[in-house]
Amino acid sequence: MIHEHISKAFDNELNELRQSILAMGGKVELMIANSVKSLVDRDTPLAERTIALDHEVNTAEVSIDERCLELLALRQPAARDLRFITIALKIVTDLERMGDQCANIAKRAREMNEEPPLKPYIDIPRMAHHTEVMVKEALDAFVRGDSELAIKVCMDDTFVDDLNIQIQRELLTFMIEDPTTISRAMKLNYISKSLERIADHATNVAEMVIFMVKGKDIRHTIA
Amino acid sequence: MIHEHISKAFDNELNELRQSILAMGGKVELMIANSVKSLVDRDTPLAERTIALDHEVNTAEVSIDERCLELLALRQPAARDLRFITIALKIVTDLERMGDQCANIAKRAREMNEEPPLKPYIDIPRMAHHTEVMVKEALDAFVRGDSELAIKVCMDDTFVDDLNIQIQRELLTFMIEDPTTISRAMKLNYISKSLERIADHATNVAEMVIFMVKGKDIRHTIA
Repeated sequence: MIHEHISKAFDNELNELRQSILAMGGKVELMIANSVKSLVDRDTPLAERTIALDHEVNTAEVSIDERCLELLALRQPAARDLRFITIALKIVTDLERMGDQCANIAKRAREMNEEPPLKPYIDIPRMAHHTEVMVKEALDAFVRGDSELAIKVCMDDTFVDDLNIQIQRELLTFMIEDPTTISRAMKLNYISKSLERIADHATNVAEMVIFMVKGKDIRHTIA
Repeated sequence: MIHEHISKAFDNELNELRQSILAMGGKVELMIANSVKSLVDRDTPLAERTIALDHEVNTAEVSIDERCLELLALRQPAARDLRFITIALKIVTDLERMGDQCANIAKRAREMNEEPPLKPYIDIPRMAHHTEVMVKEALDAFVRGDSELAIKVCMDDTFVDDLNIQIQRELLTFMIEDPTTISRAMKLNYISKSLERIADHATNVAEMVIFMVKGKDIRHTIA
């Protein structure tokens, strides 16, 4: 009876942990969308707000980390719950670094808003949208223990990688044809690479989810 | 008596864990040095060997991760040991990603060895050397619980950041003056940024060590 009581309390704690990770993820998804929106719409105040949001993401990381340590110490979980909490510890680090990347994108956008636009942006918003969906699905897969959704996220990473390569090639052409575009093209190149890195983080999360569910490690086996 | 016996066994297990993390770190340090050496000496076979070494780093991550989970489940550590093991879990992820960056540097070096050299490399080897020292010192700080050394690593990151900015400016000048250098300059830019990212990972490790030792979180307080 006491055991059941503790078990129920622990279930609630794990659910709260899931919810706080989803809430942190929601902030990161908003940062991805708004950092690129601040570039496309040349909206510097939105860039500033995106940069400011990074502090909240950082605070969330520290507090979830602490919570995981408390649960490990107090509940001494085994097997599945142990794996869930240790993966939560790693996932918040990935989320925090995604937030850093978004803040960097917003900083570049803020700089680019001071200069004439280089070209209409089509592929970068597409890339941002796909990246945001990957982050959302990776976290949904984590909280639901859904390995199929996690596998989908790993597969989607190729699409973002391809878009990044395509954008880089296009920017190279711009720079070679007109050296006055070099400085702006380098900033766009940086933004494209940052999005690709965020997608890589989402893939890392998805790989850990597959490991959590299937109990085997697919990291380093998917190219 | 039995308790003492278990405690001694656990101490030995923690020491083995420390040693395996240092061994993994040693491989990453070698990868940093050799990826840049393969660029400077135009040594493509060395680039190939560096790329191959990444598999060993990946395998080390998986095996140390498993070991940490076993220790958490079997020993149910508290306080300091719990914190040590959960930070070990995060550190191996950073080390694995440093290995990925080194493999990427070696791939760019392999491509650049097929083209005429752009310029003598002075700052990139300096940056690589400093980054390698940061990784080594961050891991030494971790295994010894030395927060002063960890703080030094955080401070050293500024030097690597500054070198990266300096290299990027220089490359921008090259590209503007002679557009035929753009493709090669972009690759060097990529290599410089990869080194900067490795130094960032070392800083992340050092920050976690300070957290481990001091029990307070300095992450996100050092700019």
